[in-house]
Amino acid sequence: MELSAIVEDSCARDWETVDPDTVEPVRFAVIGLGWFTKGRALPALEASDRCEPSVMVSSSTEKAERVAAETEGADHGITYEQFHDGVASDAYDAVYIVTPNALHLEYVETAADLGKAVLCEKPMERDSERAARLRDVAAEAGVELMIAYRMHTEPAVRRAQDLIDAGYVGEPMSVTGDMSQRLLDRIDPNPDQWRLDEELAGGGALFDIGIYPLNTARYLLDADPRSVTGNTSSSHAAFDEVDETVAFSVEFPEEVYGQFYASHNARQSSGITVTGTEGQVRIEPAFFQDQTRQLHVSRGDGRASVTIEKVDQMLAEFDYFADRLRGDEPIHADGDHGLVDMRAMEAVYEAAETDQWVSVD
Amino acid sequence: MELSAIVEDSCARDWETVDPDTVEPVRFAVIGLGWFTKGRALPALEASDRCEPSVMVSSSTEKAERVAAETEGADHGITYEQFHDGVASDAYDAVYIVTPNALHLEYVETAADLGKAVLCEKPMERDSERAARLRDVAAEAGVELMIAYRMHTEPAVRRAQDLIDAGYVGEPMSVTGDMSQRLLDRIDPNPDQWRLDEELAGGGALFDIGIYPLNTARYLLDADPRSVTGNTSSSHAAFDEVDETVAFSVEFPEEVYGQFYASHNARQSSGITVTGTEGQVRIEPAFFQDQTRQLHVSRGDGRASVTIEKVDQMLAEFDYFADRLRGDEPIHADGDHGLVDMRAMEAVYEAAETDQWVSVD
Repeated sequence: MELSAIVEDSCARDWETVDPDTVEPVRFAVIGLGWFTKGRALPALEASDRCEPSVMVSSSTEKAERVAAETEGADHGITYEQFHDGVASDAYDAVYIVTPNALHLEYVETAADLGKAVLCEKPMERDSERAARLRDVAAEAGVELMIAYRMHTEPAVRRAQDLIDAGYVGEPMSVTGDMSQRLLDRIDPNPDQWRLDEELAGGGALFDIGIYPLNTARYLLDADPRSVTGNTSSSHAAFDEVDETVAFSVEFPEEVYGQFYASHNARQSSGITVTGTEGQVRIEPAFFQDQTRQLHVSRGDGRASVTIEKVDQMLAEFDYFADRLRGDEPIHADGDHGLVDMRAMEAVYEAAETDQWVSVD
Repeated sequence: MELSAIVEDSCARDWETVDPDTVEPVRFAVIGLGWFTKGRALPALEASDRCEPSVMVSSSTEKAERVAAETEGADHGITYEQFHDGVASDAYDAVYIVTPNALHLEYVETAADLGKAVLCEKPMERDSERAARLRDVAAEAGVELMIAYRMHTEPAVRRAQDLIDAGYVGEPMSVTGDMSQRLLDRIDPNPDQWRLDEELAGGGALFDIGIYPLNTARYLLDADPRSVTGNTSSSHAAFDEVDETVAFSVEFPEEVYGQFYASHNARQSSGITVTGTEGQVRIEPAFFQDQTRQLHVSRGDGRASVTIEKVDQMLAEFDYFADRLRGDEPIHADGDHGLVDMRAMEAVYEAAETDQWVSVD
C-alpha cells in the first residue's frame, strides 16, 4: 500500500462485489423515526441505487405515514404493533433497526419470524445477554444480521487499515482513541431522552460514543480485547443513570495497549492513533459525520497529512449491506463481532465499579 | 490569554526575574560526562550569560581534563572521588548531576556538605525512598535543589499552560500523552548501558521517557495523581531488567483522567493533549529536543495550529535555575515535586505487577 495510491484513490468502494444494475434494490422497513433516522438514514436510503426505504415504522400511524409521505420510495407507514403483526411484510426485504438499544431484540425477533434480513444499530442491545439472544435469534432463523458500524466503510478508516495491514507502522504497539461532544448542548435533556435512561440505553457515553474508538481500534488491529479497566463519571444531573464520561484502557493480544476516552461533556473531539515499531497512523477528525477526514502518517524521517473527501457514511453503510445481501460474500460486522463490544463495555463498567482489571470473555 | 499574544510572543522568557548583567554567573561542577552532557548540557552552559561550566567531574582525571580542555569556561577536570573530597570546591557554586539515577543521592550528599546548590536530573533517584532522602539532605543543609524538568521552561508547554490557566479549554477533563523512540537503534545495548540496568536506573521506559508526559500533565493541570494503573512489556532481551514499554492510566483529582504511553521500541512520537469542557490544547511534537513545536488548539467552531520557534531547552533550564539562585523567587521543580513522580511511577510498577489500581501516597 503506497501513500500515493491513497491520495489518488482514497474513497474507493473496494468492498463492492455486485453491480447494482444487475440486481433488485433491497427494500427496507425502517424501524424508529427519530432525528438520526430522518436526518441521516432516510436521505442516504433515498440516494442509494442499491436500497429503497419502502416502509416507515413508528409509534403512531400518523407519524409513520407523515414520514412515508416525505420519503422518496416509501409507500407504507405503519406502527410498531403492525410491524410485529406482519403488516406490509411483502413490501420490504430487510429491516433497519434504529430504536433505543433495549428494543432491538424484539424487532429482530419479528424480523427473524418474517424471514427478513437485519441491519441493527450499535450497540447491539442494552446488555450482552440480550445481544447474544439477538444474534442467536437471527442465526436460528437463517436471516442475515449486520451491526451498523459505519466506520467499517468509512474511507479514512479503510485506508488506515490498508496501511496497517501492509506493514506501514511495523508491529502495532499502541492504540489511542477518543470521541467527545457536549450532548446537553445538542439535545433537550427531558426524561424521555432514551440515551439518558439506563433501562433503555444500557449505558451512557461508553455505549453511545465510546464504542466508536473501541470498535475502530478492533477493526484497525484485527484484534479483540483481552482485559479492560476504566473509570466513569458524571457531573450533570441528567446523567444520574448513565455515565457522562468514561476513560478506559484495553489490553489487546500480543501486549498491544489501548487507551480510550469518551465524554458527553467534553468539547467535541474525535481521533484514533495506531503507533507501531516503525510508524504511526492517525485519523483526526475521525468519527463524527460531516467532517472531512485527515489521515496523518509518519514513518522514518517524514510525516504527511492526507485529506480524504467526505463521503455519506450512511450511504456507504447501506450500500455495503445491500451488496452483501445481493451477493455471496459474508457480512463483516456480524452478531459475534458486535457481541465482543457488548462484553468489553460491560467489563469496563464492572472495572469502574470494582477498580479492577476485568478480563473479557 | 489571547492566541494572538501567543503567536506574537510565544518564546517569551516570562520566568526571568534577574537581569544577568547585574549578577555574577553561576559556576557549575558538571557531574557525569556522557553523551547527553557533552551534546546537550555543556553547549548550553557555554552559551549561557547566566552560567559557567567551570568544573568537569568524571570517572578518570584524563577524561575530565580532556572535556574541560574542550569546554569554554572550564578550568578544572577532576574525578568523582576528588569531588567527594572537596577538590576545586572554590571553583563552583552549584552542581549539575547527570549520572545514572541510583548515584544521584551520593552527589547531593557531598554537594550539601559543601554548601553547593543542586540541579539534579530526573527521575530524582532509583526509588522513592532514596529520592526522599535526597530531598531531605538538601533541605537539612539549606542548599537549593531543583529537579531538571526542562518542559517547565519549554515555551510550547508554558503557552499551553497559559491557555489552560486562562480557561481556554474550560474545565479540564482529560489528558493524554506519549513519548516513544527506538532506543536500541540509538545506543549500543552493551551491559554497561546503565539505562538497561535496574540497579542503576530503577526503571525503564517509564523512568526514562514516560516521566515526560506524566510530569507535563501535572504541570499543565497543576494537579497530582491520586491513583494509577498500567501495564509494562518488553520484547527485546536488552530489556530483561527494565520495562521497554509502559501504558498507564492516572486518576487526577476532580475526575480528570490521564492516559499515557511510553516505549523504547515504538516509532518516535511525542505529544500531550488536554481536553476540557470548552476546548482542547495539544502539543505535538512535544518532548524531544531539536523539533519545532506545534501547539494545536480548538474551541467553538475553530481550530488553529501555532508553530513555536525551537529554543535550546537546556539553556532555558540552566538560565531559569541560575535566575532563581541569584534572585529571591522560589525554585519550582523542587524535591517535593520530583518525589510525586517517583511515587506515582512506583505505583504504576506495582499496578502492573498486581493488575490493580494503586493509590499514590
